Amino acid sequence: MDAAFFTELSDAARKAIEGAAREPENKAGGNDFDPVTEADRAAERAMRERIERRFPDHGIWGEEYGWTGQGSDSWWSLDPIDGTRAFVCGLPSWAVLVGFLSDGEHRAGMIDLPALSERVIAIDGRTQRNGETVRVSGVTVLNEARIATTDPGILSAREQQGFAKLYERSRVARYGLDAMAYARVATGDIDLVAETNLKPHDYDALVAVVRGAGGFVGNWSGGSDLTGGDVIAAASEQLYEEAVKLL
Amino acid sequence: MDAAFFTELSDAARKAIEGAAREPENKAGGNDFDPVTEADRAAERAMRERIERRFPDHGIWGEEYGWTGQGSDSWWSLDPIDGTRAFVCGLPSWAVLVGFLSDGEHRAGMIDLPALSERVIAIDGRTQRNGETVRVSGVTVLNEARIATTDPGILSAREQQGFAKLYERSRVARYGLDAMAYARVATGDIDLVAETNLKPHDYDALVAVVRGAGGFVGNWSGGSDLTGGDVIAAASEQLYEEAVKLL
Repeated sequence: MDAAFFTELSDAARKAIEGAAREPENKAGGNDFDPVTEADRAAERAMRERIERRFPDHGIWGEEYGWTGQGSDSWWSLDPIDGTRAFVCGLPSWAVLVGFLSDGEHRAGMIDLPALSERVIAIDGRTQRNGETVRVSGVTVLNEARIATTDPGILSAREQQGFAKLYERSRVARYGLDAMAYARVATGDIDLVAETNLKPHDYDALVAVVRGAGGFVGNWSGGSDLTGGDVIAAASEQLYEEAVKLL
Repeated sequence: MDAAFFTELSDAARKAIEGAAREPENKAGGNDFDPVTEADRAAERAMRERIERRFPDHGIWGEEYGWTGQGSDSWWSLDPIDGTRAFVCGLPSWAVLVGFLSDGEHRAGMIDLPALSERVIAIDGRTQRNGETVRVSGVTVLNEARIATTDPGILSAREQQGFAKLYERSRVARYGLDAMAYARVATGDIDLVAETNLKPHDYDALVAVVRGAGGFVGNWSGGSDLTGGDVIAAASEQLYEEAVKLL
């Protein structure tokens, strides 16, 4: 695994997205809106093709096409466009997410922000943005922290109460950033992100990115199992623990 | 008034911001956080200097330094960094805002998005992004609309109830975009923005930008007076009227 391969995946995804239709279709029924575009599918196909050529034995999980090679010791987790809502609103926070896992551990990851020309790549325990090593802020207390979540409106009533406590105690809160928020934890610009209902393709990329920059990732109950979809990324373990107490 | 002068102001502000300290000071007391940075002040000074040289008879209102030449028939309204919270979180939605008014009318404006290398400039009733004319989407009904507000948490209880109705009926909602949201109304990517508690330097720039792209701007009660600080910008008058009924 090397940064050049992540860059190759990013180039392929960006090119596929540029050439594809952005007009959203609605994956959800009724009054819900869960947009997907041909750009999402084209980008996932482009990345799958390159992974299959280079690592034919690896598994691939992707948001749009599901599993290939499930059960392999090593696999890739792809979200071709994280933040499709932002994407269809012409906002720059959408990301191409790539996670790499081996023996169940998050070994490497990329949060690629095409609209900002930023690639944040973590390999061998080190995170770089466009080739330069980045570090979390190291903030340890909530009343100095800049926090983020995607949309307080999608939290359950109990989760909203918890987030409201974080909101009150924090220095400043931002919304609707999707994976860009985790990239900003890694670069030291945001100190804590708390979200729920995430799927593996939403969080597999960010685990290595945040840890590789010196940050801490865990669930809302103080454990490391993320499969429940509730995730906190923090600039320090102390900050994470303070948040868990309030949530 | 010409686009070249707005570009000159943008260049001056961007240069001042790049060279200045970004470490936030807190303008608010107690537990509130109202960040301001030396970058805010340096950018406003740089723009004031150029306006005073070119238009010595015009008034200038700026967020950081207040009035110069109050009472002039023509004046400039400056917000050197709109979205300082985004700015201190390393997020790209912050903007340099410049409005130009004559005889009480919004004649011209600029939403400059330095982190995105985008200048959205409205002059003589026409809005351009980086020199290309842009248009609103023309969406006329809320259930097709992409909507935005800065932070539902800062609305009053009554305003929150109104915004919740918009949220339920709209297609997708985005938060925390500050003036970038209005630029996206002008470019046809977002269809409605509703905010309260805006100051003249927050809204003076966007009025000409949204109207010059064919959009509609008014207050929450259906009138055109914005001095109460409650503002709606919409892709069409029909969409505006539907929102006013719900709010």
